[in-house]
Amino acid sequence: MSIDQTQFLSRIARETPGSQISAVADYGRARSSVIPLWVGEADLPTPRFICDAATRSLAAGETFYTGTRGIPELRQALATYHARLYGGAFSSERFFVTGSGMQSIQVALTLIAGEGDEVIVPTPAWPNFAAAVGVRGARPHVVPLRFGNAGWVLDFDDLAAAINPNTRAIYFNSPCNPTGWTASRDELQHVLDLARRYGLWIVADEVYTRFVYDGTARSPSFHDVAEPGDRILYTNTFSKNWAMTGWRVGWIEADPSLGPSIENLLQYSTSGVAVFMQRGAVAALEQGEGFVEHLIARVKRNRDFVADAFAKSPRIRFSSPTGAFYMYFAIDGEPDTSRLPFRLMDEIGIGLAPGGAFGHAGDGFLRLCFARSADSVDEAVGRLTRWVAETA
Amino acid sequence: MSIDQTQFLSRIARETPGSQISAVADYGRARSSVIPLWVGEADLPTPRFICDAATRSLAAGETFYTGTRGIPELRQALATYHARLYGGAFSSERFFVTGSGMQSIQVALTLIAGEGDEVIVPTPAWPNFAAAVGVRGARPHVVPLRFGNAGWVLDFDDLAAAINPNTRAIYFNSPCNPTGWTASRDELQHVLDLARRYGLWIVADEVYTRFVYDGTARSPSFHDVAEPGDRILYTNTFSKNWAMTGWRVGWIEADPSLGPSIENLLQYSTSGVAVFMQRGAVAALEQGEGFVEHLIARVKRNRDFVADAFAKSPRIRFSSPTGAFYMYFAIDGEPDTSRLPFRLMDEIGIGLAPGGAFGHAGDGFLRLCFARSADSVDEAVGRLTRWVAETA
Repeated sequence: MSIDQTQFLSRIARETPGSQISAVADYGRARSSVIPLWVGEADLPTPRFICDAATRSLAAGETFYTGTRGIPELRQALATYHARLYGGAFSSERFFVTGSGMQSIQVALTLIAGEGDEVIVPTPAWPNFAAAVGVRGARPHVVPLRFGNAGWVLDFDDLAAAINPNTRAIYFNSPCNPTGWTASRDELQHVLDLARRYGLWIVADEVYTRFVYDGTARSPSFHDVAEPGDRILYTNTFSKNWAMTGWRVGWIEADPSLGPSIENLLQYSTSGVAVFMQRGAVAALEQGEGFVEHLIARVKRNRDFVADAFAKSPRIRFSSPTGAFYMYFAIDGEPDTSRLPFRLMDEIGIGLAPGGAFGHAGDGFLRLCFARSADSVDEAVGRLTRWVAETA
Repeated sequence: MSIDQTQFLSRIARETPGSQISAVADYGRARSSVIPLWVGEADLPTPRFICDAATRSLAAGETFYTGTRGIPELRQALATYHARLYGGAFSSERFFVTGSGMQSIQVALTLIAGEGDEVIVPTPAWPNFAAAVGVRGARPHVVPLRFGNAGWVLDFDDLAAAINPNTRAIYFNSPCNPTGWTASRDELQHVLDLARRYGLWIVADEVYTRFVYDGTARSPSFHDVAEPGDRILYTNTFSKNWAMTGWRVGWIEADPSLGPSIENLLQYSTSGVAVFMQRGAVAALEQGEGFVEHLIARVKRNRDFVADAFAKSPRIRFSSPTGAFYMYFAIDGEPDTSRLPFRLMDEIGIGLAPGGAFGHAGDGFLRLCFARSADSVDEAVGRLTRWVAETA
């Protein structure tokens, strides 16, 4: 007997959208010859020294419940890492271990937004954020960036105009997935000033801060402009820097006064993260700098290669990303990029994400992740530019 | 500069209660000599063959993103395990891997309850369920069981009387944490009939189904009475049967028509569970039966020992549990069991959970977990019964 039980679900469950990227990934995973550039993941497995730390912990029997905020060693390692990266002193009490960057966002949103609230989301943006706003019964208020000769541009008047009495927070993702847009320190100061003036929270998603291509160690950060009283929730993950996408470990950085509230929401979500996973995360922070440098060099080489190839293809419109590891581009004459990824998988065996998955501002665009081996990126880009030339 | 930022949080975040069990655990963890019986966890590390499966997967580089519903091997292993335990055929499409039993509950509640809804919760009950109802903006509607000479009794008239137009679901935890109360097949049928008549969901928490003491392989289950169209969400975990509390891996069993909705909510919570953790869970299901039997025999011996000891102590009121692995008891003359756990840690070095943490129906009770080594249970019970005799 087959009955569709979805009719009996809550309104929020019925209205939560599927991931368009997952739909592409599911289609592509069944086709082993497709070069998978749809998802934000390097093709390197997690470095051995990180896996070994987890394995040692498992072998030592660290398989029991632990404190919800994270083991002290990891909270301290996060504080030390932040002090090194941003300068100044960080208390370990600012850090909370989560079961993924996604969970960091889920908990951050539960902290600050509920039924009837709005959260401002500059787009194109990683779609899971807006969907998670919806799961809280709140509404994402989209502020589209505009694409032109100067690349993607955020109009700060648009941002200010989006603020209304229901606004609780601004989501700010820099460097940006998918556009590669990276805010300057002045732009971050501007966002912070707005948040202060209107009493808003900032959800600072600086997951890609290490992936910048100007020779610096990191992108400008809210850490550069914030004062202790500012209402900023930093949501982050071990996934990108240390090739730990599959692990599902992340962190929240927040004012220590929020500790009990964050602990409670973690308690009623997943009640903590496995100790042996956390041991791996400690190893990543303490011994992972060489790997991060290796990964960034690899990604930079690919970025330059893709940008050069695309520059020679007059039908491709793009702006070379200053951060993150995606090329976000449009092909003249191919406005429907919701169907195009499936066609490109079938016709030339390359897997891209549909640009509209990141908001309507990205309709007509495609996202290509270049955090993979040079061989696979070069091959995919070759196939793509030939296809673009031939279908002109 | 120290500013309390909690004043700027959402109503739900401000109202989410802390875990009273965590408060006891935090106090006790700092006192290494305390025998910790406050939490629902065996003192056995995860069996070697489970850890080895995870280790092999890590070493093989299974550290990438995976499908949100769980790897096919684990979904199939869950189907096979259920077929063995309950009889009949189970489709793997009914199973969804989660990042803990807690997350199973969180996702189940998001599926079915929102702002203004009510969920019926017979108490005493594991407090995290009611708290998770609150995080969804819904209200737990408590139905207290009564304690008397026949042990804990659920009055089905009370249960029916709790149903009103806002009711969306009944939470049903049998065998029950903390009381050990275990519903009969007839009682489950009665609950199911109520749910059918009023169009309610059932959240079936049968986490302790293997921990019964009448020689059977499992407690009566909604699987024994349900028909395919019934709206039942089973929330479960690997924690208890296979000593995997620290892993944070669980599952939801539900009608396959809910697959896309469950996948979406998992996607926007934690986006899946590490493949190497799932390999460990497969090993637990496929090779873990011997361990489960060993664990149950160990727990049964302890249950009998504690019951015998308590029976000789006239001030202790209790009913020997028919399921789960807790002794839930009161001490005549000690009505304030919110403070008593701290006193017992200080005075005799044993750690118990306060009964009121499980709802007001449990005020005046204490919970003792006997899923630990015979030595530590015997020692703790000896200290406790002496203390009870001496403070008379």
